[in-house]
Amino acid sequence: MTKRNDHFIVKEVKVVRIGIVGGGAIGLLFATQMAEIDSTIVFTKTVEQARALSEQGITRIENEQKVIRCVQADITEQIEHYQLDLLFIAVKQYQLPSILPYLQQISDDLPLVFLQNGMRHLQELDRLTHKHLFVATVEHGVLRIGPTTIDVRGRNRTNISVYRGEEQKLSPFLNSLEATFPFVWRENPRTMLLEKLSANVVINSLTAVLKVTNGELITNSSFLKLAETVFAEFSAVFPEDVQEAMWTNVKQICLKTANNRSSMLSDLEKGQQTEVEAIVGYVLNEAKKKEIDVPLLQTLYWMIKGLEKKSLD
Amino acid sequence: MTKRNDHFIVKEVKVVRIGIVGGGAIGLLFATQMAEIDSTIVFTKTVEQARALSEQGITRIENEQKVIRCVQADITEQIEHYQLDLLFIAVKQYQLPSILPYLQQISDDLPLVFLQNGMRHLQELDRLTHKHLFVATVEHGVLRIGPTTIDVRGRNRTNISVYRGEEQKLSPFLNSLEATFPFVWRENPRTMLLEKLSANVVINSLTAVLKVTNGELITNSSFLKLAETVFAEFSAVFPEDVQEAMWTNVKQICLKTANNRSSMLSDLEKGQQTEVEAIVGYVLNEAKKKEIDVPLLQTLYWMIKGLEKKSLD
Repeated sequence: MTKRNDHFIVKEVKVVRIGIVGGGAIGLLFATQMAEIDSTIVFTKTVEQARALSEQGITRIENEQKVIRCVQADITEQIEHYQLDLLFIAVKQYQLPSILPYLQQISDDLPLVFLQNGMRHLQELDRLTHKHLFVATVEHGVLRIGPTTIDVRGRNRTNISVYRGEEQKLSPFLNSLEATFPFVWRENPRTMLLEKLSANVVINSLTAVLKVTNGELITNSSFLKLAETVFAEFSAVFPEDVQEAMWTNVKQICLKTANNRSSMLSDLEKGQQTEVEAIVGYVLNEAKKKEIDVPLLQTLYWMIKGLEKKSLD
Repeated sequence: MTKRNDHFIVKEVKVVRIGIVGGGAIGLLFATQMAEIDSTIVFTKTVEQARALSEQGITRIENEQKVIRCVQADITEQIEHYQLDLLFIAVKQYQLPSILPYLQQISDDLPLVFLQNGMRHLQELDRLTHKHLFVATVEHGVLRIGPTTIDVRGRNRTNISVYRGEEQKLSPFLNSLEATFPFVWRENPRTMLLEKLSANVVINSLTAVLKVTNGELITNSSFLKLAETVFAEFSAVFPEDVQEAMWTNVKQICLKTANNRSSMLSDLEKGQQTEVEAIVGYVLNEAKKKEIDVPLLQTLYWMIKGLEKKSLD
């Protein structure tokens, strides 16, 4: 909106209010980046974390430097009392069902961006009445090392795609972040999610079972054989959507993040629930529907479920 | 042999000289047991271990008690210079090829007992000209914790079967051990080795990959599914020889040795070569010949080979 004045044009800068549901590694990373230019509020599961974030802000460690960013914070139950212009949903896929009731209470006009791994959340999105829904896949490597502190291990980009509604609702805002926190628009949300899923299926599940870094999957010839076989099984389940380029992408991620421990391995080591259902479970389910044999994925699923049970004990 | 005398019968007690090739856990356990009643000599790979054994004897720890048994010792290269009545071969299967040249130099009349895991060594036995060959499977749980010290975790028995020649060559001697170190004669050497192989294939390979104790394979429902699937693949490769009783046997071993870490897991943890070739490799090879699909065993093979490479680095 512009106002005509006698001598000059005043551009009214609209204040954008960004909401982020989820106080995990990705939620806090997004919050620190959004807070640099806009008013940002983080919605958490616990009162304790909301209080800590309001009081201490978020500490972002990167290249041995610390940056502290102040944010607002509250528990997710309170979300309907805030006026927001845009909302990122940064909880794990298995936490989504507990978040949906709060999303159903907020305005249908509020654009929502879902940052979950896997593809299972697409079904849940279909049950929402919001006009503008987006899905995104995050390629930044980030670790939460406390309720208000994250460690950025590697930056890359966020891919984003329209699931329902208009790209225009989001693009002006994302453009303003371009220099510091790039988003890349992708045509097809399914293909984009499948690409991320293929990497997660291969890298997360194998590194979690073998307890190795991402890079070892391609430098150790026996592990590489396993990775190739997992990818071949994945391709057999999604033959129309999987191209050779996806395998190249998986190998490049292993190379770029060679010294990183995957999130699934970290989860097992910390005795936390993993995303095995959203990642391997989803593929097994699709394989079952299509009556395709995926013995290695079935093996990895049982191994991770068993290790999860053991570490949660 | 008995001698008639005027007033009484003097029984000439023959001194039996027992040789044991291999200074590992099983070799040293056998040596301590044989040394209790007969003259025993251990043949080792290194001069250092032979010297240490000659000087310090073997320390056997069991139920928090220590027993020291004196033995003779020498390197395997010297074996032909000893007069022996019986020889146990207690090296790992993958060490057998380096031992065979020395066995070929010793008398064809000397009975040989092979204690290797797997079944691959049967081919190697066929190349020997000795008249009396026996194969055995050891059900004692024992760990070597130094060049002259072993820790006996659990005693059970040794199964033994004639591969070639006469049972009578061995049975009088084994009977003399009955009270302290029981041997059980088995009709069919193949069935006996297959039974041990089935337990090793299931227990060793899964515990090595998952890094869990033997008991967790049956108490963790996801791990139990994996164990059942490994056993099912094994059965498919040897359909004539595998009975339901073998699966019961595998579960009973897991139960009896619940707190033990398998030898393959220990080998990986110590950065030592495992017996994966003799155990999983053998089954894969048989499966290939018979064109039977064993995807879980193939996966476990690659995982263990990769972990072995990693730990040997």
